[in-house]
Amino acid sequence: MDDPWTGPTVGQVGELAVLDRIVRRLPAGAPALGPGDDCAVVAAPDGRFVVTTDMMVHGPDFRWAWSSPEDVGWKAAATNLSDVAAMGAVPSGLVIALAAPQDTPVAVLESFADGVRAAVDALAPGCGVVGGDLSTSATFTVSVTAFGDLGGRAPVLRSGARVGDVLAVSGDLGRAARGLARLFRDGVDTDGEPARSAVVASGADADPDVDRQRRPVPPIADGVHAATAGATAMLDLSDGLAIDAGRLARASGVTLDLDPEPRLDDLALHGGEDHGLLATFPPEVALPGGFRRLGAVVARGDADVVRGGEPVPTTGWDPYADWDGAAG
Amino acid sequence: MDDPWTGPTVGQVGELAVLDRIVRRLPAGAPALGPGDDCAVVAAPDGRFVVTTDMMVHGPDFRWAWSSPEDVGWKAAATNLSDVAAMGAVPSGLVIALAAPQDTPVAVLESFADGVRAAVDALAPGCGVVGGDLSTSATFTVSVTAFGDLGGRAPVLRSGARVGDVLAVSGDLGRAARGLARLFRDGVDTDGEPARSAVVASGADADPDVDRQRRPVPPIADGVHAATAGATAMLDLSDGLAIDAGRLARASGVTLDLDPEPRLDDLALHGGEDHGLLATFPPEVALPGGFRRLGAVVARGDADVVRGGEPVPTTGWDPYADWDGAAG
Repeated sequence: MDDPWTGPTVGQVGELAVLDRIVRRLPAGAPALGPGDDCAVVAAPDGRFVVTTDMMVHGPDFRWAWSSPEDVGWKAAATNLSDVAAMGAVPSGLVIALAAPQDTPVAVLESFADGVRAAVDALAPGCGVVGGDLSTSATFTVSVTAFGDLGGRAPVLRSGARVGDVLAVSGDLGRAARGLARLFRDGVDTDGEPARSAVVASGADADPDVDRQRRPVPPIADGVHAATAGATAMLDLSDGLAIDAGRLARASGVTLDLDPEPRLDDLALHGGEDHGLLATFPPEVALPGGFRRLGAVVARGDADVVRGGEPVPTTGWDPYADWDGAAG
Repeated sequence: MDDPWTGPTVGQVGELAVLDRIVRRLPAGAPALGPGDDCAVVAAPDGRFVVTTDMMVHGPDFRWAWSSPEDVGWKAAATNLSDVAAMGAVPSGLVIALAAPQDTPVAVLESFADGVRAAVDALAPGCGVVGGDLSTSATFTVSVTAFGDLGGRAPVLRSGARVGDVLAVSGDLGRAARGLARLFRDGVDTDGEPARSAVVASGADADPDVDRQRRPVPPIADGVHAATAGATAMLDLSDGLAIDAGRLARASGVTLDLDPEPRLDDLALHGGEDHGLLATFPPEVALPGGFRRLGAVVARGDADVVRGGEPVPTTGWDPYADWDGAAG
């Protein structure tokens, strides 16, 4: 693969030419009206649409030493598609705003677009990028907004879990965090700074867990499968099973009781960025798609989440309080 | 007014408390389902929705020496609402992603939210902020995505102008640019750096044109008025009358012939950020709302826009090529 960090910069090429080179690489989908006007027009056959937005910032959210531009494009699309799936909706479109420093090679933006396309093709085929905005910033920043159609179904909220329901998950647990831990351990130079050369030399570059950290694979189709099967509550696992289960428990006014088996290790319990789906189902429902049982919904006790009668801590990462300012 | 640049910072207060303090200040609107889940649910009675996204970055798009946090909130909302109006749609919701440095006072984010609310209350009452995302960045960045409902009407595109139509505008021409020119002249210190003290001392702070630069007042309701009256093409004036008229002309395959009167000066022709609406109407239509005649649509010639037989230049600002890197 050619190194995208070479060649003419966006400042040299100018906005229109950059746009032209990016747009042709993005998945077009089938919007009612695509880019070119002040707005795109997107079909909403349901008469409602779901919408989510998420910003990825160089430094706290990704580092060029550890992620390629294509990885960042993939992740920006995948994480937003996952939020759409978590409502039980089918992704219907994305808009992407991107701000890059003026000395960014155009090839970096092209690779980013390739990553968006790869993620959409793999995870939500038919969903297109219907619009966007290109800006300049000292800090590389991506903001994705994703839409979905509910197909006449009620949205699956966090607040619907009922005592007696089964707690189940679809997707990875702890893999993205294991990959991130490997990068923090092996992907740094002798001063502890993120370094691309260390990622390659250590073999971390070929580690499948590192790949999952860079390119999460949320089980998008299982969102609709869960809704159709009668899921009572659902959310996307972005901050780790324990903290996200805590959110579902509090929203529903219940406690979630994890089974002794499978025995979940600390990474599975507390590792973030897997973007699996956590859902609750009535006990008589056969778990659909890739869902597997993790526990049961019980009456609200002192803790949000328990295992073997013991509370499971449900705290996690706070970007304002916890980011160390490093950008690598 | 209290100085928002004081008090505890977002890094000290933490994400949840910051969110809590912001959300209560934002206009709630009437979404089918508000914040709190992975997605918001927004009504789309038309069965389609229009969507636009726009990122505002500290440095190229605004400077704290010249704009208050409330100004930035107003402008971020107003510019996106204007794009919705330019399709002939009624704004139905906004999502806002915001990234702030960790040392930003929480009061800055609260003031930003107050500005969003003021703009929505003034320009599109009933339209709410249905969701968002809060992040950390070395560069203060706001990304707004706005939605609108077409109410069963066809979207008004840039490409529909026909020979014989009347060219008309609603809203300011040149005021925002006059305000910006004043800030560049009077709002700088002896080294030419943007300085709040100079803005106040020079009286620029009380200049109504400066106010329009900071807080554009797009004629949102005139978007629907134009669509209902039968506008054949329309767009939002963001980069200046000449460059935006050029876009409409090229998309429609026509030339726009400006009347000798009113005589438009250079600021009216080439000044950006007014966020008025430029539209074309069949000749028999009585111009609706605040629209006034500027010229006529004629057969495609060598130039996109002409006046008195002479071509009007239709070039403008390119953020990649033209931003000087200053952030003030």
